[in-house]
Amino acid sequence: MSVTEADIQLAHVLADAARAAILPWWRVPHGLEAKGDSSPVTRADREAEAAMRRLLIAERPMDGVIGEEEGAREGTSGRTWVLDPIDGTRSFIAGRPIFGTLIALMDGGWPVLGVIDQPILSERWLGVIGRPTLFNGKPCATRSCGDLKASVLATTSPALFDDGQLHAFEHLEAVCGHTVLGGDCYSYATLASGHVDLVVEAGLKLHDFAALVPVVEGAGGRMCDWSGEPLTQASKGEVIAAGDPARIEEIVEALGCRGG
Amino acid sequence: MSVTEADIQLAHVLADAARAAILPWWRVPHGLEAKGDSSPVTRADREAEAAMRRLLIAERPMDGVIGEEEGAREGTSGRTWVLDPIDGTRSFIAGRPIFGTLIALMDGGWPVLGVIDQPILSERWLGVIGRPTLFNGKPCATRSCGDLKASVLATTSPALFDDGQLHAFEHLEAVCGHTVLGGDCYSYATLASGHVDLVVEAGLKLHDFAALVPVVEGAGGRMCDWSGEPLTQASKGEVIAAGDPARIEEIVEALGCRGG
Repeated sequence: MSVTEADIQLAHVLADAARAAILPWWRVPHGLEAKGDSSPVTRADREAEAAMRRLLIAERPMDGVIGEEEGAREGTSGRTWVLDPIDGTRSFIAGRPIFGTLIALMDGGWPVLGVIDQPILSERWLGVIGRPTLFNGKPCATRSCGDLKASVLATTSPALFDDGQLHAFEHLEAVCGHTVLGGDCYSYATLASGHVDLVVEAGLKLHDFAALVPVVEGAGGRMCDWSGEPLTQASKGEVIAAGDPARIEEIVEALGCRGG
Repeated sequence: MSVTEADIQLAHVLADAARAAILPWWRVPHGLEAKGDSSPVTRADREAEAAMRRLLIAERPMDGVIGEEEGAREGTSGRTWVLDPIDGTRSFIAGRPIFGTLIALMDGGWPVLGVIDQPILSERWLGVIGRPTLFNGKPCATRSCGDLKASVLATTSPALFDDGQLHAFEHLEAVCGHTVLGGDCYSYATLASGHVDLVVEAGLKLHDFAALVPVVEGAGGRMCDWSGEPLTQASKGEVIAAGDPARIEEIVEALGCRGG
């Protein structure tokens, strides 16, 4: 479960390649009018993932790859790269620079390296297990949160919750300070930099959350599922990120009230 | 109802002053921990508004001023400047660069000039009645929308709707393509640049929407209330912005289904 300097260097090269693939499609006129396979949105996604896959095949032929667009390629090294070329496609198509490219390296089933990259703002968060998270090369940290009443809570959209989850979320929201919507991976990135206190979402897949874990935990935060257990691929995508781990228990308790 | 070059120049000077007042408070650590009067968030708002008011008192002593933070100052010229130093405070405190400073000049009760300024990204939309809207000095335009099914719909938060409004909005959402949440004034700015097709909100006050009208309409879009009527201070804050005016009728019709 160790991460080498070569792994870190490769993660940067992958993120650079995704940036180069995405930038030509940013705020392209009529970007959404051609939907389906020929849409620039899909092309930005696919071209960014393809660029990263080409590099991985060349540099790490033994590693597995799981990508949002092209599915899985089995490896033989026990290590797997998990790619989400554009997390926050709706923000991307709406011209909001708060989407991100997600890159994770899994070793023994656990994410040991994660990158959240914002191509338009040239912002990059890099998390490596056992090391402090870096924001554009400098250490960043979550902030402490003495009281949830003063906290900033982020979630991308209440529409991603089922009825029971929505009920639980509203119960949590009632004890928090401010809720911000939208955001996708950018909510976790800004949590790692100490501007958001908690992110609570559901329906996340491995490629949505794997990269977030090393970023958030290396900045001093903690990620778990809605029961407070470590995230696994079987976690139903119910994710908590807390900037201050001391608040996890209260968050889980507030979310415990589902349904009637 | 004419806008002079001096008015436009002054609007830029006001936006520059707001930028200078806001930037020192951007992503300041522990910004939200000190709430109330001494909070950096409130200070960013207040300092930006105060900076703009100082300039207006010096340059336009006869004009009225309405600001979100300090209330109204009566004028004698028949012209009024309407200021919202930070529209999208939640985005601001969460470290998302998609809030904005709003500056409007009202003449005869109608906004004849509007600025949406994003201080962090150095993005500025300037709308002047009868002229093309400028994005960072270059003309920008809304896009056509042949079919709402392929549209991008933005609204800041469903929590801002009452039950009847929420029902109406969900009815509209069902006939639109994609919904993006969050955004505040940035949704209208990106609509003026052709990335978002419609914005539908409620509960907006004069300082929230006055600046948006010249920006959206000078880019080829149209703003009205949920009945399709021109916006007034008495519009209950129900606002539609459509990039393609040809879709207004369908939007109003979809929103017509309130309650039961």
